[in-house]
Amino acid sequence: MYFHDPRLQYPVRVETPDPLFARQLQQAIGGIEGEIRVCLQYFFQAWGARGPNPKYRDMLLHTATEEIGHIEMLATAVAMNLETAPLSLQESAAEAHPVVNAVMGGERPRHVLEGMLQRHILSTGLAAMPVDADGVPFDCSHVYASGNLAADMYANVTAESTGRVLAVRLFNAAKDPGMRDMLSFLIARDTMHQQQWLAVIEELGGNAALPIPNSFDRSQEASRFSHVFFAHNHEGVPPAQGRWTAGPSLDGQGEFTVAQSTPMGEKPVLGPAQPLSGAQAEQIKG
Amino acid sequence: MYFHDPRLQYPVRVETPDPLFARQLQQAIGGIEGEIRVCLQYFFQAWGARGPNPKYRDMLLHTATEEIGHIEMLATAVAMNLETAPLSLQESAAEAHPVVNAVMGGERPRHVLEGMLQRHILSTGLAAMPVDADGVPFDCSHVYASGNLAADMYANVTAESTGRVLAVRLFNAAKDPGMRDMLSFLIARDTMHQQQWLAVIEELGGNAALPIPNSFDRSQEASRFSHVFFAHNHEGVPPAQGRWTAGPSLDGQGEFTVAQSTPMGEKPVLGPAQPLSGAQAEQIKG
Amino acid sequence: MYFHDPRLQYPVRVETPDPLFARQLQQAIGGIEGEIRVCLQYFFQAWGARGPNPKYRDMLLHTATEEIGHIEMLATAVAMNLETAPLSLQESAAEAHPVVNAVMGGERPRHVLEGMLQRHILSTGLAAMPVDADGVPFDCSHVYASGNLAADMYANVTAESTGRVLAVRLFNAAKDPGMRDMLSFLIARDTMHQQQWLAVIEELGGNAALPIPNSFDRSQEASRFSHVFFAHNHEGVPPAQGRWTAGPSLDGQGEFTVAQSTPMGEKPVLGPAQPLSGAQAEQIKG
Amino acid sequence: MYFHDPRLQYPVRVETPDPLFARQLQQAIGGIEGEIRVCLQYFFQAWGARGPNPKYRDMLLHTATEEIGHIEMLATAVAMNLETAPLSLQESAAEAHPVVNAVMGGERPRHVLEGMLQRHILSTGLAAMPVDADGVPFDCSHVYASGNLAADMYANVTAESTGRVLAVRLFNAAKDPGMRDMLSFLIARDTMHQQQWLAVIEELGGNAALPIPNSFDRSQEASRFSHVFFAHNHEGVPPAQGRWTAGPSLDGQGEFTVAQSTPMGEKPVLGPAQPLSGAQAEQIKG
Amino acid sequence: MYFHDPRLQYPVRVETPDPLFARQLQQAIGGIEGEIRVCLQYFFQAWGARGPNPKYRDMLLHTATEEIGHIEMLATAVAMNLETAPLSLQESAAEAHPVVNAVMGGERPRHVLEGMLQRHILSTGLAAMPVDADGVPFDCSHVYASGNLAADMYANVTAESTGRVLAVRLFNAAKDPGMRDMLSFLIARDTMHQQQWLAVIEELGGNAALPIPNSFDRSQEASRFSHVFFAHNHEGVPPAQGRWTAGPSLDGQGEFTVAQSTPMGEKPVLGPAQPLSGAQAEQIKG
Amino acid sequence: MYFHDPRLQYPVRVETPDPLFARQLQQAIGGIEGEIRVCLQYFFQAWGARGPNPKYRDMLLHTATEEIGHIEMLATAVAMNLETAPLSLQESAAEAHPVVNAVMGGERPRHVLEGMLQRHILSTGLAAMPVDADGVPFDCSHVYASGNLAADMYANVTAESTGRVLAVRLFNAAKDPGMRDMLSFLIARDTMHQQQWLAVIEELGGNAALPIPNSFDRSQEASRFSHVFFAHNHEGVPPAQGRWTAGPSLDGQGEFTVAQSTPMGEKPVLGPAQPLSGAQAEQIKG
Repeated sequence: MYFHDPRLQYPVRVETPDPLFARQLQQAIGGIEGEIRVCLQYFFQAWGARGPNPKYRDMLLHTATEEIGHIEMLATAVAMNLETAPLSLQESAAEAHPVVNAVMGGERPRHVLEGMLQRHILSTGLAAMPVDADGVPFDCSHVYASGNLAADMYANVTAESTGRVLAVRLFNAAKDPGMRDMLSFLIARDTMHQQQWLAVIEELGGNAALPIPNSFDRSQEASRFSHVFFAHNHEGVPPAQGRWTAGPSLDGQGEFTVAQSTPMGEKPVLGPAQPLSGAQAEQIKG
Repeated sequence: MYFHDPRLQYPVRVETPDPLFARQLQQAIGGIEGEIRVCLQYFFQAWGARGPNPKYRDMLLHTATEEIGHIEMLATAVAMNLETAPLSLQESAAEAHPVVNAVMGGERPRHVLEGMLQRHILSTGLAAMPVDADGVPFDCSHVYASGNLAADMYANVTAESTGRVLAVRLFNAAKDPGMRDMLSFLIARDTMHQQQWLAVIEELGGNAALPIPNSFDRSQEASRFSHVFFAHNHEGVPPAQGRWTAGPSLDGQGEFTVAQSTPMGEKPVLGPAQPLSGAQAEQIKG
Repeated sequence: MYFHDPRLQYPVRVETPDPLFARQLQQAIGGIEGEIRVCLQYFFQAWGARGPNPKYRDMLLHTATEEIGHIEMLATAVAMNLETAPLSLQESAAEAHPVVNAVMGGERPRHVLEGMLQRHILSTGLAAMPVDADGVPFDCSHVYASGNLAADMYANVTAESTGRVLAVRLFNAAKDPGMRDMLSFLIARDTMHQQQWLAVIEELGGNAALPIPNSFDRSQEASRFSHVFFAHNHEGVPPAQGRWTAGPSLDGQGEFTVAQSTPMGEKPVLGPAQPLSGAQAEQIKG
Repeated sequence: MYFHDPRLQYPVRVETPDPLFARQLQQAIGGIEGEIRVCLQYFFQAWGARGPNPKYRDMLLHTATEEIGHIEMLATAVAMNLETAPLSLQESAAEAHPVVNAVMGGERPRHVLEGMLQRHILSTGLAAMPVDADGVPFDCSHVYASGNLAADMYANVTAESTGRVLAVRLFNAAKDPGMRDMLSFLIARDTMHQQQWLAVIEELGGNAALPIPNSFDRSQEASRFSHVFFAHNHEGVPPAQGRWTAGPSLDGQGEFTVAQSTPMGEKPVLGPAQPLSGAQAEQIKG
Repeated sequence: MYFHDPRLQYPVRVETPDPLFARQLQQAIGGIEGEIRVCLQYFFQAWGARGPNPKYRDMLLHTATEEIGHIEMLATAVAMNLETAPLSLQESAAEAHPVVNAVMGGERPRHVLEGMLQRHILSTGLAAMPVDADGVPFDCSHVYASGNLAADMYANVTAESTGRVLAVRLFNAAKDPGMRDMLSFLIARDTMHQQQWLAVIEELGGNAALPIPNSFDRSQEASRFSHVFFAHNHEGVPPAQGRWTAGPSLDGQGEFTVAQSTPMGEKPVLGPAQPLSGAQAEQIKG
Repeated sequence: MYFHDPRLQYPVRVETPDPLFARQLQQAIGGIEGEIRVCLQYFFQAWGARGPNPKYRDMLLHTATEEIGHIEMLATAVAMNLETAPLSLQESAAEAHPVVNAVMGGERPRHVLEGMLQRHILSTGLAAMPVDADGVPFDCSHVYASGNLAADMYANVTAESTGRVLAVRLFNAAKDPGMRDMLSFLIARDTMHQQQWLAVIEELGGNAALPIPNSFDRSQEASRFSHVFFAHNHEGVPPAQGRWTAGPSLDGQGEFTVAQSTPMGEKPVLGPAQPLSGAQAEQIKG
């Protein structure tokens, strides 16, 4: 079960509210690289964790709980960046929003409004929503919790890598010092979390534990295809060389090779349509 | 640009069609762990690839192109597993489907029908759809192409890891020898592809290239938070030990530590609602 | 069954077309607070209405039918606001759109275009769509029809409350007198509809009929938890007082109290992963 | 910021695991009436709360934090109900699942499997997901946080009313005593939360504070339409009487009346298609 | 604006309620081939209709209004088919549902329940929802209203063709005589509506008015590619002959030909990643 | 199975990158009228094709394969149009983007940024995504593959008609000569493909093969309703005349007529709510 402290994990300050930056911050809340995703992903992985060692569940719960606080910080930052947003298409709005005019470098309210998520005005009264920077709601299909510990750790590395890429882009886009400070903290946490999940993979054996899942009896695998890079180009020119085209395979069980892919199967022939299946008569066998 | 050969990459045979297995196979087509996802993901990563070395784009195109053929194999397998599916709720359907009765171990057509995706009958005339095993359409937000090569490679490892977990589960669920053979091939290809993307990460420096993105000036990061595991439990009991709680950090730039998380920020106070913002009067400053 | 009159329920006039306001109006069509939602919600509640008294079904049908006309008015308003929208990114478009230049206060066509939903140009030929103000299509999961009359009435109050909040925000944003007139009508109808659904709740007994559903045998409820406000803060400071922390409960069956929440359950322990479940070997019991 | 305790808020016990009940419980996790929804809804309302009185934000945070623990309980219950689920379509699976055969009253594994969410097997390794009982992922557009306190409270009453209706249906469907005990707790909490949000509305003035939002200048409303029930039936038969057709209006500012709705507007005429708008030539003015 | 008559357009009778058929009927309500789609599609086409001839708008409104009544009929049919559905997983439910046992041919309630949409029980209290036969909500992105009259007519033919295919499949699946009678009516209406939209295309010139849109200046089209069927097979074997490989083109402006497709463009080279774009350092030009 | 050539099917050149045009091009990639849709639609139709004549499967594969190359061209065009996009909200960005200032006619970077899809910066590092012009991801429910050849061909005509309408709108919006050239090619291909699918319908008999599906025994259709245009207007004024109101029906089996629609059914009466169904007590029969 869970508890809160009304204070934020790290300070959130905005000197110069910018509604367009509020929009960009939404990506870190409701985007697929965002904090709702990692929060729910770590929770569902923890709640479904199976296996004799409870420490992974334990670790996941700590970090999932931390991530709620990151959503909270970002939602607060969005609301603060919207504080002086224009609400009206009227020319006279200029007078109604002296702060906007002062702080946004002389932008006309209409221009500020054009760049905003309209739902920040129309649906929230100037607050954050669980949507991305273009207004698409977060969809929980992005919560990866496969029941395989190693696959889940890679999913988490992905989430924290795309998450840190996003945080860096937001840092680069921001000009407000308070926002830059908040993002420097979130970037640091993503740095830690990337390594945290990779550390689990190291504990699990790293590449030596490949392929994932390692519980499948590999004698049932068509292993002659397990270490070959298939070239699929029309002209048959050999593909560029890389670590994946030669040398020992990462799972330590073979050598990488390259082959031009060719059909091993036949042209498929499906049965005719059934008489009551709603096909055209021409599709039904006479 | 692209070309096709009407033959399949690998043989697809079904001895005993099973509409419930057709449903399960849909996960490998339109599920988030499925082949549409990897196909489009590798294509979009290739088409947007930036950087001086074209070999990554080249590699991505080869494998993306291979994946189209995997969707094709699975779609063919779904259609074959639906060949003898019942179409009717009528009792008399039993007579109309002698094959079903013979091959499905005496199941009544109604029971077979209950376990099916209804849209296999109603929307496709007994063929595959780009949906998952519970009927949810594939949504292209799952196509991860971040513009950061390392983050994308981890996304690909995730896709192939969850993909191989899925293929193994399907193999374990299947009883048809043709289906098991097809899956043994797909499992092998996932084995290769997991290693292929990890090989790129090895080329990029592996853990030494952390954190992702490595183009951010780390002097701007709040680095005192970059290697600490924050405990977020109510009682303050120290968390379980792991590779992530002590020892050198994976990026080689620090030591992992543990700390109980405490608020560094304040309780946030947002401004009052604006008079024209549609709030209740009580929310607007007097 | 249904009939139409080709005339509108209330006049729709636009003196100064504004493509950005067309975008904002979309929220009232395809947003979750919009008219498609209430229309379908009242219809599905009516079509599934069970119970001896047919008057609720009757009432729902009247109002659902009215709401089609509101979608029609708003769709007409969107098309009218798009009449003079720019279609091109070319500089020369300025000459091609003298009306734009005249009526939009000298905005350059490119700026007008930047604030638009691009699909108004690309997908509709300058007409309304069933999407919200940021372009997200309406999703019918928002049609609440629970089969419980009281729960549905509260869902309807919610819809009309958020609907009137939205209409007020649009009124405040609008500067066109025709649009303000149309919105003053829609605001009035929302005023009526809020009260209409609350009047049903009054007929059903108001708070006296709580909790919803009132058909559950309350002796089976863990009623010691039915009137207590659980504090979930870390430090255990008593929460702020309110009507919900003391005094008689609204259902007339107890007294509100406050308690600090503490765990009554244990740390959960799930069984190990099954051998064929695709987990890592480490998760499977030895 | 947030903290966790590894123990559950209330005990979760399952004596007889039932994968079909696991599926049904998903509705209380990822359904629109479920716990993810209320949890995120209360959090976003709190994080965006504006107004001089901080106690509403405070209250929302307490209850939002409680709701995380409810998701946790339900996710645990799903995993426990899936413990003995069949993984295979093979006949021989019967032997592999003696527990299933014993506890499910002699059901054949195939029949048990037919009723399951297939993704419980294929995507999670027998654990909960953030999807509803038919497999549709939770979509955060259902997080209602309008910025208007009264509208939000009604949204919360709706959520807790449909939530308790759902919990009662699950209780009625369940046969496991542990599941019934857990649900009796969740039903009680929904009882409290229904009243909690209604208590806020009482503090805000109840019906006297209508219409929502109460910050709109009603002289700008077309108030002759604010208390009239419009009949929209073809034949013009007067509608059934109710509290909403006569007597004082709930906002205390008028009398309810009934009127047959008739067109006040004209048949709309849109301008012709623009020459470069991609219409057929016949739609463009000559 | 709109009116209703409380009676149905055509009788809806169910002699033997079947919850699995209720599920199948959902496809005709909330599926992409269903009635919500055509209803909203015709309405949005009408409300956005531009052009000198108002008769198309007029026709669309008549038929859109008819379609509301079709949703109503189907929603009624779903509710009637759910009348005797089991609500419980308990064995004792058998006694509680004597009707089920009698009418469903001796099915055990659990088996009936396994084939149902679980949300019919959990979310609606045994009534229709705007979802498809596998529980996926209708998404209004399927409302095609392009602003081009001819394109829209083809979209309507598609909707009525897939709609009649669906209705035929439902007719073939049904065994209840009341349901078959209702479907025979809906099939007939789809027959009419297919022809109705094709009749508009005939009025617009049929194939002679191709290509759509016919308002584009064809001198700006790369017309050497306008009548050639490109073969895209790897081996270069000539494709099968058809009406589209030889003979006069349907637009009367050329001859169909066949050509093997070959690259006319170059291998694309994108610029390097920008320094502040969040790429890996390796992707940024030195 | 499939192969690629690293060269593009047709040249893609951009002289003056424009991030707003990049946004508009997204509609042709991930919009419902776009190339991902037709590509997957033709593939799924091919992979599920049933019937004695394999030439339709063959044709579909050729064109589906061509369409991959069209997505590739458009994705390349998007990336090229984003080459010089601003990444920052800072004033100083102006200096950092001399090219922008030069080529965009003196636009300030902030204005350019306001019109962009924010995810082009935040999620992709300036590359294409499978989303539409307003940022909504492509959803594979738009892949129409009904199992009925004629219905599918009409779906394809629709896709190519709305696709060419879109391409024409993009051509009209574009000012870059390279983009206009690329679009002139895509417009030509849509011209061909419209005719290709109509040619199949001609082979299948054209209108003579109506109604779709033609495999349904028409003696089971309520054929008295198969050729009548139902007027659904309130006042009963006869509808406007058209090809669909009189004359021989297109299926050659009747005469079009017009009739005012009137109720043939009764007011529906559903059974009362079941005692355990979670309804209010008032809805349950005493």
